[in-house]
Amino acid sequence: MDDTIHAGTDTDSRYVVATYRLRDRADTLEARAEGIAIGLTIGTWTDLPNARKAQVAAHCGRVEGIRVIDEAAPGGVIAEIDIAYPVANLDTTFASLLTTVFGKLSMDGEIRLQRLHLPEDLERAYPGPKFGVSGVRERFGVYGRPLVMSIFKACAGLTLDELVDQFGEQAAGGVDLVKDDEIFFSEVHASAAERVVAYREKAREVAAQTGRETAYAVNLTGPVHQLRDKAKRLAELGAGALLVNVVAYGFDVLADLARDPDISVPILAHPAVSGALYGSPNYGIAADIVLGQLMRLAGADMGIFPSMYGSVTLGGEATEQLLAHLRKDGVHRKVLPAPSAGIYPGLVPQLYRDFGIDLILNAGGGIHGHPGGASMGGQAFFDAISAVQQGQSLQAAAVDKPALAAAIAKWGARA
Amino acid sequence: MDDTIHAGTDTDSRYVVATYRLRDRADTLEARAEGIAIGLTIGTWTDLPNARKAQVAAHCGRVEGIRVIDEAAPGGVIAEIDIAYPVANLDTTFASLLTTVFGKLSMDGEIRLQRLHLPEDLERAYPGPKFGVSGVRERFGVYGRPLVMSIFKACAGLTLDELVDQFGEQAAGGVDLVKDDEIFFSEVHASAAERVVAYREKAREVAAQTGRETAYAVNLTGPVHQLRDKAKRLAELGAGALLVNVVAYGFDVLADLARDPDISVPILAHPAVSGALYGSPNYGIAADIVLGQLMRLAGADMGIFPSMYGSVTLGGEATEQLLAHLRKDGVHRKVLPAPSAGIYPGLVPQLYRDFGIDLILNAGGGIHGHPGGASMGGQAFFDAISAVQQGQSLQAAAVDKPALAAAIAKWGARA
Repeated sequence: MDDTIHAGTDTDSRYVVATYRLRDRADTLEARAEGIAIGLTIGTWTDLPNARKAQVAAHCGRVEGIRVIDEAAPGGVIAEIDIAYPVANLDTTFASLLTTVFGKLSMDGEIRLQRLHLPEDLERAYPGPKFGVSGVRERFGVYGRPLVMSIFKACAGLTLDELVDQFGEQAAGGVDLVKDDEIFFSEVHASAAERVVAYREKAREVAAQTGRETAYAVNLTGPVHQLRDKAKRLAELGAGALLVNVVAYGFDVLADLARDPDISVPILAHPAVSGALYGSPNYGIAADIVLGQLMRLAGADMGIFPSMYGSVTLGGEATEQLLAHLRKDGVHRKVLPAPSAGIYPGLVPQLYRDFGIDLILNAGGGIHGHPGGASMGGQAFFDAISAVQQGQSLQAAAVDKPALAAAIAKWGARA
Repeated sequence: MDDTIHAGTDTDSRYVVATYRLRDRADTLEARAEGIAIGLTIGTWTDLPNARKAQVAAHCGRVEGIRVIDEAAPGGVIAEIDIAYPVANLDTTFASLLTTVFGKLSMDGEIRLQRLHLPEDLERAYPGPKFGVSGVRERFGVYGRPLVMSIFKACAGLTLDELVDQFGEQAAGGVDLVKDDEIFFSEVHASAAERVVAYREKAREVAAQTGRETAYAVNLTGPVHQLRDKAKRLAELGAGALLVNVVAYGFDVLADLARDPDISVPILAHPAVSGALYGSPNYGIAADIVLGQLMRLAGADMGIFPSMYGSVTLGGEATEQLLAHLRKDGVHRKVLPAPSAGIYPGLVPQLYRDFGIDLILNAGGGIHGHPGGASMGGQAFFDAISAVQQGQSLQAAAVDKPALAAAIAKWGARA
């Protein structure tokens, strides 16, 4: 291959660099990498006349690195390869990004997209979070501590009154946000708009007692072309946040919402269906790209992902990389992580150590399963938070905090 | 569990039935299945008071089947389980369907969505193809034979004049459709609208010689909220079809296009990124669901998928199931299959046997790589088609058909 198309530096702002893990024959690995770099950008290189080479060089991919990771079956290897794709080949959609770096290639045998490096100019072309960590804090008036979010129990079939009761119980515990069940699509008993209005009324009623008005993250559902208007309407009616099943809809659908300046509430990204992309270690797209990097670029203000405390975890390294994507300094606002599954009050000191305070404590069973009910469940989280903030052990704090004491009795506590 | 929620028959129109292949412990398999059926619909059952059971029974999932496929590590099994989810829990989006049947569950260890059965009423709520096989034939005036589609070579960096030349060469071979490269997003030299106009002019110029006007399948790109208007504009300007990277955008984005009555051209669905979902045999979603079943529901008129003749194939069984999804009698129009990669003129008799005539012969290298150029490459396909239609062997036909003879000399022929 001509040297000219290898020009550029490691931080060349004209290229997106994708790293793949793949299985191939040892003796054809280099040719495979070249084939990807050229075949998936300008098609051919060596056969081109010189004038044409000069013309299309800026659109040609290039091999940035080839590393053999492991021997496989006789003559085979597991390898990582880095391919640089010109930004000039892209527009500013996820469809173009994903189709370019993992379109045909995703169908080409055992191969996994492991890392993706976007130059800052391209990152800037994506919307990113409208609120981010500081905007979410401002919106909900929560400073100096993690947010506490409670998850609705299954809602299908319940009347609006029953739903309002469930909301009210959770709000009574003082939680900052109550999140819809992401599988709640049925609007037979109450539309999303009706829920937003009724829950808000209830939130104000509870706030008259507690002094804290709990917000509602409503599941944004329906046909794609109606989502922007629906989001605006729900925001006007008083929704605290929009829950979006981002992977099920597509990242460009979230980006469309985030780009709309008239949608004035934070977006809570749910990871539903993402396991279909990241589950296998040998195929698909790494979890930190899907739930970290792309979510932030697309505009999630808060991002849910499987915690390392539940029965199914992403693993330590993937979780660290995911967090880095949500939080590293960059062109976009930072995302509030909401590690989910297996979260209970006794885990709060551990959560502080693992995540710091810019965090959402997101609990379902860990709130509803409290022996004193959901209200006590929420209270127990706040008891635990204030203990940690004051440098007290949970056990010591529990002495005069019955909600926390009951939670520790049921679920235990990590020091 | 109470029997009442097991009521219903195999063809119960109130349920979507999903079949999963998973790895689990043998002794907890039943509990796992129950946990999915209940946990992912109404949350709990046994703890509910009777009045509440009656109220939510219609929203409760149920286990339809459990089959152990294989022994795994000591105490473990590979199993298939069938779970029925009430249609009452869904709206008519793919986001709701996928989140319901493979939302959280996709993140729950080694599990793959293998089959999906939708009752007809629910299928009817999705748009399906606007044109389908007969509509596409009518639109392009092609009857009694497969359609022939040629694929643009890499386009990035080429001027409009060069692109028009490439289109013209392909059109001169008489192909019915020329398809954009699905990675063509750059509009520096020519916008999609400019290409549609310029190619149409060229197509008419060529048609004055050949009598056949070649259509252009233009890559539909850009932000989601602009796609409907862009699609209408491109159709008005004379686009023959819209190429859509469906998986990269999301199935609901395609459904939105298909539901719009004012978008008056067929949709050609590209499988880019789909391998990230179906690649692994143990995770993700089966290829026939992604590229067959969901594509048809969402409104693809023509569906591209990896052929069994290329280097990467889906396998015989998956291909058969995929085809069944595209073609079986049902509530929606049928989809024209476009098996791709490894298609050359000498394969036409085999393609007739494997697919019949309701098929798109979709070739890139098998047209551009013809020793006489792309025009001869297209001609060679038509030579092969007329040979098969007349019951002639390709070898016999090639005697007085130089385009076919050259193709056979280069790529060979299957009897």
